[in-house]
Amino acid sequence: MQIAMIQDKIVPVEELEAVYFDRGIFFGDGVYEMVRSYDGKIFALEEHMQRFANSLTAIGITGVNIEQIRCRVRKAFDAAGISNAKIYFHITRGSAPRNHVCDADLQPNFFLTVTELEDNLETKTNGIAVSTYPDYRWKRCEIKSLNLLANVLARQEAVNKGSAEAILVDEKGFITEGASSAFFAIFGRTLQTAALTVNILPSITRKFVIRAGQNIGLKTVEKSLTPQQASDTDELFIASTTNDIIPVVRFDEKLIGDGKPGKYTKLLIQEFHSFTV
Amino acid sequence: MQIAMIQDKIVPVEELEAVYFDRGIFFGDGVYEMVRSYDGKIFALEEHMQRFANSLTAIGITGVNIEQIRCRVRKAFDAAGISNAKIYFHITRGSAPRNHVCDADLQPNFFLTVTELEDNLETKTNGIAVSTYPDYRWKRCEIKSLNLLANVLARQEAVNKGSAEAILVDEKGFITEGASSAFFAIFGRTLQTAALTVNILPSITRKFVIRAGQNIGLKTVEKSLTPQQASDTDELFIASTTNDIIPVVRFDEKLIGDGKPGKYTKLLIQEFHSFTV
Repeated sequence: MQIAMIQDKIVPVEELEAVYFDRGIFFGDGVYEMVRSYDGKIFALEEHMQRFANSLTAIGITGVNIEQIRCRVRKAFDAAGISNAKIYFHITRGSAPRNHVCDADLQPNFFLTVTELEDNLETKTNGIAVSTYPDYRWKRCEIKSLNLLANVLARQEAVNKGSAEAILVDEKGFITEGASSAFFAIFGRTLQTAALTVNILPSITRKFVIRAGQNIGLKTVEKSLTPQQASDTDELFIASTTNDIIPVVRFDEKLIGDGKPGKYTKLLIQEFHSFTV
Repeated sequence: MQIAMIQDKIVPVEELEAVYFDRGIFFGDGVYEMVRSYDGKIFALEEHMQRFANSLTAIGITGVNIEQIRCRVRKAFDAAGISNAKIYFHITRGSAPRNHVCDADLQPNFFLTVTELEDNLETKTNGIAVSTYPDYRWKRCEIKSLNLLANVLARQEAVNKGSAEAILVDEKGFITEGASSAFFAIFGRTLQTAALTVNILPSITRKFVIRAGQNIGLKTVEKSLTPQQASDTDELFIASTTNDIIPVVRFDEKLIGDGKPGKYTKLLIQEFHSFTV
């Protein structure tokens, strides 16, 4: 008899819900997105849906109707009635007995949550500390996949050191990005961030940050930084969907500027918010 | 209201089972093992339990009683009553709303299945074809984690090419291992396989294969091979828990030897089986 066991309870396999056999859990065989709303309006949904479609294609999950997914996101957001919400959703290749290879006609699994966003006023106002950590992630980080253990371990290590985010450093000694954020430096009137190579997630927020930078007269340089360069810069910040721009005031043990959010970072936060109203 | 959505159905979060919030699915935040039995006897359980304990430690999942897990494995195996079984089990950090960082006291989730092993007589007798694929995995492959998307994509690509396994090649041009197997070559009376570095899974089967090699008079060399060296060798095989030794008779487009399983490979299969009775 084929059996399963959950904690210390034996269960016949036939009695288990499909979710227990989700390839998402066996292999991380799926992709996800996170979108957020500002005051009842979902921000940049089209961009997120396009990236989600790209991720699905990259790992060969076919037969997903993106228009249908977009409708589900809107339907769930409306049903939740949360005006500042984060909406997480993933699609996995489906549920099947564990085997690396699976039938091409497996039905993908969709899962979504809508949650109220936590207030981040304190971090926005005072900035955060970040710590560097080796970038142990896989080599296809341009895909927003469910394989995030390296990110989790890096973030946990940062938190253990009293930091809010881990900044990942590759084998060549260059910063790639944060464990769940893009990473930016400002030197004079130049905004610098890593170029979108094969191992950088094409952050949606990054795109709007660069646009905001142009609007306030900053020049953009897309080039990787070393930790030394980052710690010697005028201003630093991270950017992500849920928190848009968060100033960084400490990099490893080094204070950035005068240890307070920089003036251009504050202007960028304002300018970014003009996109979200 | 916090809500979730499964396929196109909206569900209040409170009504969902914890498994939907398993960090295994959100992040691949867990580790696993696969053991097998031969004729009613589990093979090398102690070695697998030791490796499982090492994996848990490596990702900082604490508070798991390994003795209890060992008992669960035996209990489930006995309950299933399958004499040639594969026993898969994983532990994830637990279930919680999605957040990279989680409470240290989260209760880990344990899941196990016992399944009848498929007959592999045909592949053992005739050998298999393998294809090379870039090693896109993360940089901590010595940990048997649930982050296996790179392995899945490599295997799928191999299958698309008519091969049974993907042989992973790193950025320096060296073979690391198979997508779910260790990889071996035989030159003359020398058995060669990659050394156990930080990016190679410490395969239990590998250890027994090396012992079998010594028993039949083969010298062991632990050194990475290039695809060119592999395709020029006398014999090739892969090794894994579920299938122990499987001869490789085609490497990319090149026939190995006379295209039939090699004589030492066949001797190794016999010798290996003497360990399992």
